Amino acid sequence: MYYPTPIAKLIESYMKLPGIGAKTATRLAFFTLDMAEEDVTEFAKSLISVKRDLHYCDVCGNITEEALCEICQDKTRDQREVLVVEEPKDVMAMEKVREYKGLYHVLHGVLSPMDGTGPDDINIASLIRRLQASEIEEVIIATNATTEGEATAMYLSRLIKPAGIKVTRLAHGLSVGSDIEYADEMTLFKAVEGRREM
Amino acid sequence: MYYPTPIAKLIESYMKLPGIGAKTATRLAFFTLDMAEEDVTEFAKSLISVKRDLHYCDVCGNITEEALCEICQDKTRDQREVLVVEEPKDVMAMEKVREYKGLYHVLHGVLSPMDGTGPDDINIASLIRRLQASEIEEVIIATNATTEGEATAMYLSRLIKPAGIKVTRLAHGLSVGSDIEYADEMTLFKAVEGRREM
Repeated sequence: MYYPTPIAKLIESYMKLPGIGAKTATRLAFFTLDMAEEDVTEFAKSLISVKRDLHYCDVCGNITEEALCEICQDKTRDQREVLVVEEPKDVMAMEKVREYKGLYHVLHGVLSPMDGTGPDDINIASLIRRLQASEIEEVIIATNATTEGEATAMYLSRLIKPAGIKVTRLAHGLSVGSDIEYADEMTLFKAVEGRREM
Repeated sequence: MYYPTPIAKLIESYMKLPGIGAKTATRLAFFTLDMAEEDVTEFAKSLISVKRDLHYCDVCGNITEEALCEICQDKTRDQREVLVVEEPKDVMAMEKVREYKGLYHVLHGVLSPMDGTGPDDINIASLIRRLQASEIEEVIIATNATTEGEATAMYLSRLIKPAGIKVTRLAHGLSVGSDIEYADEMTLFKAVEGRREM
């Protein structure tokens, strides 16, 4: 005895998602079986729509339904600052803060010699072309605080600085609300290094 | 700034699944965006197919693509035993053991006065009709070891026994590989009560 084909196929699909193993996938598949028909139809439609209707902004690489994303279209935003992130979801995270008013550039990856990702494999060339053609005065590098993120930040900084453009990096330090006791050594080191006068 | 509509809708759909909150749903939605097109199409198709192609077996209530499930169709199975479970997934769990060779009956729920689920709300009438019309000699009650599962087992036992049909219940006791130290009191009580001579 095996699962009926439709269930087996759905379990297989759920298992392709990150962090979902055979047990969870089975639970989700049986849950789907009991879901309202319109919810399941809606779910299937949005899956298709995400692949069909979304693409990358021609200018910054953010995801959008149109040729230009709404941030690039918005002329009220500060056209002199560009914040460089690894992935489109980093743009969303940044936008939630409602503090940054400039533009973005999405690299769609990070330099990683170990995985064979070099400068030509991520969105660096388009950033350089953008910097040459526009009035950008400051590039804020907001790659992740990982080894690869740091290396990418360093690489970009060396590439951009000679053109006379200011390059900054997001601050590293203790998370707000965190205990010093539980902070890892690198974070504590960065927190001491980046200490500010009160 | 909000998420582009297709992403927002997909996040909403993922959040309808059990155990998936806003953060995980967002992560899954962005993961979907990077998945291979055919995998996503396959996923959407299986969602639709699970709702469209599967229904409940006319005899036992198990899920099937045809009028009768493959267990009810299989005449080599022992037609004198029926094992009563709460949900179709319990049938699959039982079948994985490859020990039980009889038939099944799926209640699609459990008696629960607190939730307003009475005998008419679950598949009991069809079980009784089935017992009257067939050569079933033993009903094995395999509802879950919860208060509601126990109450349902008790109710079914009182209903079926007078007809001269043998009614049994799955054994309760320590899980294989478990420590006595960590077993809960009810399980230990059941394990002592159900002890067997060696």
